Amino acid sequence: MRLHGFFRSTASYRVRIALNLKGIAAEQAFLQLRAGEQRSPGFLALNPQGLVPALELDDGAVLTQSLAICEYLDEIHPQPSLLPVEPLARARVRAFALAIACDIHPVQNLKILERLRTLGLDDDQVTGWARSVIEEGLDACDRLIAGERGRYCFGDGVTLADICLVPQLVNARRFGADLRWPRLLEIEAACLALPAFADAAPERQPDAQ
Amino acid sequence: MRLHGFFRSTASYRVRIALNLKGIAAEQAFLQLRAGEQRSPGFLALNPQGLVPALELDDGAVLTQSLAICEYLDEIHPQPSLLPVEPLARARVRAFALAIACDIHPVQNLKILERLRTLGLDDDQVTGWARSVIEEGLDACDRLIAGERGRYCFGDGVTLADICLVPQLVNARRFGADLRWPRLLEIEAACLALPAFADAAPERQPDAQ
Repeated sequence: MRLHGFFRSTASYRVRIALNLKGIAAEQAFLQLRAGEQRSPGFLALNPQGLVPALELDDGAVLTQSLAICEYLDEIHPQPSLLPVEPLARARVRAFALAIACDIHPVQNLKILERLRTLGLDDDQVTGWARSVIEEGLDACDRLIAGERGRYCFGDGVTLADICLVPQLVNARRFGADLRWPRLLEIEAACLALPAFADAAPERQPDAQ
Repeated sequence: MRLHGFFRSTASYRVRIALNLKGIAAEQAFLQLRAGEQRSPGFLALNPQGLVPALELDDGAVLTQSLAICEYLDEIHPQPSLLPVEPLARARVRAFALAIACDIHPVQNLKILERLRTLGLDDDQVTGWARSVIEEGLDACDRLIAGERGRYCFGDGVTLADICLVPQLVNARRFGADLRWPRLLEIEAACLALPAFADAAPERQPDAQ
């Protein structure tokens, strides 16, 4: 397997964590997103969306979209499971993950911030946009797990929810968000105590600059 | 079950289709998004994200995020299945669905367009933003299924991919996108020939105005 990614991409970070949790070895290929390598013909042939991550399997099949990749890894390598067993519990974990993957990350990623700049917004407005999207989004995530008391987002086992939360907190800091979620920070610390998370961190990747 | 939604919300439309395909009856509750009812304390108690849809189960549990709800419905009521059986095929269907649910819809929904207006963008710029996000996004979706030859996005059975595609095409028309995807339009027509899709269409809902 070969993971096409970028150290600072939070979606790539999610897949790095999942691979580590499953103990699946994957070669890494790095794209320079700021130089636009994700829009090169070669990469678009792999992923028509021009986004990282993309997971290339040994037979040449290519998987895209970090959550689809994580669910795939969970299906081919069920232990440790990234989702609970009961349908209702699975739905709550997936909803938390999607609250980040749909409603926070795509609205503050590099592509959208570039689009805002082309409309004439200045750096302060663009950073303010990202910060505000992240703060509102994580406020909601914090409330989504208000009734939970485990070590991680949902109970005492790591799930897809934690895999989405930890990378999003990196972006929260990067854009100067008000880190007003003690519970989320406590979960982040518990996750980062695990090598699967710590080894996947952006600053630990070979392409980190 | 009670589905909290809005006729024009494409995420609500996805869940309406899934419920119809499964033959699951659900009462509908309608929110006036343009009047901000999704931000009322009563609704925020149901869904801290302040977004539709939310599916309230008979025991009071509330599910959020349309894709998590669809996967839940698929798990509690497996036939007809919304996903193929093989992990790789499932991953490709989910990736297509997420390409819409993460990378198109949240970047052109009401909330983001309102945010753009508060930054001083005029109506033409806001509509242009939505149109461009949809065109680029559906260009990629069209290429994601370039090798497929079935009646629907993936083969001859409806999947989660079709459930996301059809509502997004409503928004494509609404924002005046160039409908340059004959294959996607052919799939849309095949879907709309099914009562499960046709009955879920925005204009068929009691709150349509």
